[in-house]
Amino acid sequence: MAVIALDLGGTKLASAIFSAGGKMLSKSIAPLAGRRGPAVGEMIGGEIKGLLELARSRRLEIDAIGISVPGISQVATGKVWAPNIPGWEAYPLRREIETRLRRGGGTRGPVKVRRGGINVIIESDRACYILGETWRGAAAGCRNAIFLAVGTGIGAGILVDGRVLRGAQDIAGAIGWLALERAFRRDYIQCGCFESHASGAGLAKVAREILVRGAGAPSQKRAQRSTLGRGNVLTAREIFAAHEQGDPVAKQVVAQAIELWGMAVANLVSIFNPEKIVFGGGVFGPATRFLNDIYAEACKWAQPIAIRQVKLQRSKLGADAGLYGAACLARQAS
Amino acid sequence: MAVIALDLGGTKLASAIFSAGGKMLSKSIAPLAGRRGPAVGEMIGGEIKGLLELARSRRLEIDAIGISVPGISQVATGKVWAPNIPGWEAYPLRREIETRLRRGGGTRGPVKVRRGGINVIIESDRACYILGETWRGAAAGCRNAIFLAVGTGIGAGILVDGRVLRGAQDIAGAIGWLALERAFRRDYIQCGCFESHASGAGLAKVAREILVRGAGAPSQKRAQRSTLGRGNVLTAREIFAAHEQGDPVAKQVVAQAIELWGMAVANLVSIFNPEKIVFGGGVFGPATRFLNDIYAEACKWAQPIAIRQVKLQRSKLGADAGLYGAACLARQAS
Repeated sequence: MAVIALDLGGTKLASAIFSAGGKMLSKSIAPLAGRRGPAVGEMIGGEIKGLLELARSRRLEIDAIGISVPGISQVATGKVWAPNIPGWEAYPLRREIETRLRRGGGTRGPVKVRRGGINVIIESDRACYILGETWRGAAAGCRNAIFLAVGTGIGAGILVDGRVLRGAQDIAGAIGWLALERAFRRDYIQCGCFESHASGAGLAKVAREILVRGAGAPSQKRAQRSTLGRGNVLTAREIFAAHEQGDPVAKQVVAQAIELWGMAVANLVSIFNPEKIVFGGGVFGPATRFLNDIYAEACKWAQPIAIRQVKLQRSKLGADAGLYGAACLARQAS
Repeated sequence: MAVIALDLGGTKLASAIFSAGGKMLSKSIAPLAGRRGPAVGEMIGGEIKGLLELARSRRLEIDAIGISVPGISQVATGKVWAPNIPGWEAYPLRREIETRLRRGGGTRGPVKVRRGGINVIIESDRACYILGETWRGAAAGCRNAIFLAVGTGIGAGILVDGRVLRGAQDIAGAIGWLALERAFRRDYIQCGCFESHASGAGLAKVAREILVRGAGAPSQKRAQRSTLGRGNVLTAREIFAAHEQGDPVAKQVVAQAIELWGMAVANLVSIFNPEKIVFGGGVFGPATRFLNDIYAEACKWAQPIAIRQVKLQRSKLGADAGLYGAACLARQAS
């Protein structure tokens, strides 16, 4: 029972066929190239058409299609809300795909499908990440595990007793909004307290605040000695590079981020008592070297028995986590 | 299919028979009277014996027994860890009860049991509270709901898609350990940041700190004007009473607690996207009047869509939540 997996990102679409044994047989990546709204849906449909033809040529029977999307997937309606894809506020992705499949998938002849058609399963990227990692990655075999995705933003894919945590309206895992520090600040309105300080964009913002506004004697001295650029183009990657060189502002920014990542890990551990927390996204990456420090910080705050039972690990699947997760979903549905 | 429900607390044991229709037919409460270790297990066994005889006299067939315990119930082993019952570090409660049931329940004659015997289900009190409230209480019919228990300590019973969140080792929901405020303080080692500030004991501690150590001019002035006692006997109830009278220290303590309760609610909402959060325990109770303020605080911090979808409510079952939850468990198992 082979499956098709697609992983839609903000700028590109990855796709693959997985064999019945769970092996990735083909993989391709195509840039969205500025597509928006229905054009992205058409692109996905076209990709599926191509993969169905490829599968037929290899005599593979496709049972299901799993799609990872960069936003919220509403299970009841099949609609997707993806903030980085213009026009995808409530885009009816499942209907679009199923309509195309009923037309024979657009292939030259009948597509071999199981009775009732090919199942189409759409899930948020963060949920796909943890499904992928528990199927074939860093949390293989775990039934209670969390994927902490720290990139431009922050989110979590959470597996509870083997099932994805969805919540009442499919928006569970929005941990960028974790409240970790009084008092409330206006900049939390846009993206939440945790994300505002400890995402990739947050790290750059904190560094800029120290460099530009840097009040208080110690910060001012650090700012004067720092080699970090004063412009708006500062990135998390540059901060980590400067940290390696002993830059005082970078060290301050990273130390605060470790504290907040540790507090967030502690909160997830006290609440969920998971076996593993897997770190991924653009920031982990370079911040993976701080996992021991993050664990030490979390040990201070968390329920003491639960924190000893959890392991923090770097994503094993990296950029393929979404594809593996989408394939895992499709296999569960087939 | 009638069931027996027991709710063990730190100082008393409540028990009841529920009809097949889910009606509480009898209820009794007995003090533990200083019992500890196996003596508490014997007391539970004796209570079950009495209830089985009562059921037989009423021609009720008992299918299952649900027991709520004030601590951690390890599903795999049937052992219970209850910090407030001396000698219950890993007490084999299920084995004790099942051994007694195999002996005929201690009744004068064979007990009418289903094939395979009477199921015995043991669950933590916080899990029972949310099961009870979703079955017959403030969250009736919800599949994603949280019971926030704020008394001497703080814990949460969490229902995810209709199932209790247990975690890898049955200690999920330990939200007294939530990290809500940098920097780390030594008093968090004992019971966690959130509980240290915002449990019943935490409120009293915060008030004492202001009254006794009260550094900083505004706090000192408030302490001088406060009518709150300086002794160690200060309780949360006294703080709420003083708040009603406009006491300045009580107002400061309650304002901070509302902020922290709001942040914790926000974190649970951003993570779980629940339909309802039910407040119970000794503090809610008197703090129920602040639910609107807590919601307003949570609105600042939480994922903005999820917070609009949740309702905060006071427990409807009150002191009976554990019994209803234990009965609900037993019904699920029968």
